[in-house]
Amino acid sequence: MSRQVVLVARPEGSPRETDFELRDADDREPDDGEVAVRNVLVSVDPYMRSRMTGVRTYVPPYEIGDVVDGAAVGRVVASRHERFAEGDWVHSRLGWRERGVAAGDELRKLDPELAPPSTALGVLGMPGLTAWIGLVDVGRVKDGETLWVSGAAGAVGSVAAQLAKLKGLRVIGSTGSPEKVEWLQSLGIEAFDYNRTPAKEALADGIDVYFDNVGGTQLESALFALRPFGRVIACGAISRYNDEGPVPGPRNLGLIVTKRLRVEGFIVLDHTDRFRAFIEEVGPWVRDGKIVCRETIVEGFDNLPRAFAGLFSGDNIGKMLVRVGPDD
Amino acid sequence: MSRQVVLVARPEGSPRETDFELRDADDREPDDGEVAVRNVLVSVDPYMRSRMTGVRTYVPPYEIGDVVDGAAVGRVVASRHERFAEGDWVHSRLGWRERGVAAGDELRKLDPELAPPSTALGVLGMPGLTAWIGLVDVGRVKDGETLWVSGAAGAVGSVAAQLAKLKGLRVIGSTGSPEKVEWLQSLGIEAFDYNRTPAKEALADGIDVYFDNVGGTQLESALFALRPFGRVIACGAISRYNDEGPVPGPRNLGLIVTKRLRVEGFIVLDHTDRFRAFIEEVGPWVRDGKIVCRETIVEGFDNLPRAFAGLFSGDNIGKMLVRVGPDD
Repeated sequence: MSRQVVLVARPEGSPRETDFELRDADDREPDDGEVAVRNVLVSVDPYMRSRMTGVRTYVPPYEIGDVVDGAAVGRVVASRHERFAEGDWVHSRLGWRERGVAAGDELRKLDPELAPPSTALGVLGMPGLTAWIGLVDVGRVKDGETLWVSGAAGAVGSVAAQLAKLKGLRVIGSTGSPEKVEWLQSLGIEAFDYNRTPAKEALADGIDVYFDNVGGTQLESALFALRPFGRVIACGAISRYNDEGPVPGPRNLGLIVTKRLRVEGFIVLDHTDRFRAFIEEVGPWVRDGKIVCRETIVEGFDNLPRAFAGLFSGDNIGKMLVRVGPDD
Repeated sequence: MSRQVVLVARPEGSPRETDFELRDADDREPDDGEVAVRNVLVSVDPYMRSRMTGVRTYVPPYEIGDVVDGAAVGRVVASRHERFAEGDWVHSRLGWRERGVAAGDELRKLDPELAPPSTALGVLGMPGLTAWIGLVDVGRVKDGETLWVSGAAGAVGSVAAQLAKLKGLRVIGSTGSPEKVEWLQSLGIEAFDYNRTPAKEALADGIDVYFDNVGGTQLESALFALRPFGRVIACGAISRYNDEGPVPGPRNLGLIVTKRLRVEGFIVLDHTDRFRAFIEEVGPWVRDGKIVCRETIVEGFDNLPRAFAGLFSGDNIGKMLVRVGPDD
């Protein structure tokens, strides 16, 4: 019998392991048009924290008792859908389960010859598409501009920083540890540790675009550093997701008027029609090693809640994944 | 000898009369290419408050000892510029003076047969252009959308509200007194007094666009009320101009991401190339009475500082002007 992770309490502040429970699943066989999948790598993503609060935003919240759904890659164990055969690698929304059954139409077949299946959860999946949409469609970045990316060692930030560099921008990345700074520097990105270097100092030359993964005081620093006609790509606010109740915003919003700034939010789900264009541009860069896709892989299904909580304390470098089964 | 108003102290909080001094001017005659003008109506505008703080934004600050320059209309008393003759009505940047000399190239001749000269300071001048640019170029408002305008009885807000109605939007205006609410309602605008009706209640149906003249808590209310893909036209923040030091911003900026909002600031000075297109659309509406241009005219040059301070306590309905001399 396979296992699954169920939300049993809405997290207060940082998510705790007691907010979740491992339960046995009902391992049914697929019906017509369905496919049974054994998960291999399961994604934990910051946006899931918002879904745990019970407030409806752009996706319905998780209800108490729900299995935590989300992105995963795995292998087909039984198929009643013509496009899938046993052994195929697939991307699914089955989430925090060892095994599950999904409509074949909701699965995407992966070719492990083209790219490692794990990249479908990172650089060539939603995090990568998020970085690309943010830069291209929202920020409309241009060659020669200066970009600041916060959370630059994260799944989205590390792709955004590398993409922007390939597009001819000067890229400054902020992150939360010396090890992460070193990694970013090894990619040719000017990086600083926000715990050690004030953003004001690191951004003293000014910036044209801010890719915001963090919110809060870093957004305030960005508004100060932005040049006239600058843009904020409002992607996320990981510094805020564990807040209990509302927290005052930046004290310098008046600069939006005086500097003629544009602050624009986006959600990658609205842009899935751009997936093909994204893969066409970014796929070759990944294949040729021009974009490095680092992953932090936590071993073991039991560790899903702990890996998820670790996102908010910065445990990951690059994309955080949990291995719940063997490749083969 | 004519008089002028000089800034003698940077206002702390609300501007006071003691921040200004009336001084005699050096009434020189125009040189070649110059024109001497007797001011008739002088504009007082909220943006002037920022220029008094001494911080450079998109315009240089007023320095202590400077005459307060700004928009005014008046009549030519002596001309050494081929395009101007004695008696002509002109729009100038001579500001808080009874009389001044300006380069002819910096003046705009007004035809009092086409529209009352005072409209060049309001509905057919910078405030009107501001409203139009905000709606058309920044907010890109569409027929059938719902717009909230704060400061809706002010110089910019009252034009924005009426323009949006003519463009087929549902318009909700907020303002600060029952008299102003009544005036707005007489124009067919749904209006509420923010001192009496919580914005949350007045905006319960949701809005698509927020034209922000006020900032602060009203911006927070807008973020709550905006529907997905809504826009904030960030025009001004009159509630904040008298602040001493930074004040925390709205507590709900996370909604910019989850609702995919666009918050965009603009400064009308960047859009003067759109003046002709603006006049072509809005001129006929003003001529035909489809846009009502109300003015609050304070009498007497001595009252310039008091009229200016009154902007921040909501003394004006429509455009605030000071009459400093007779029409003829």
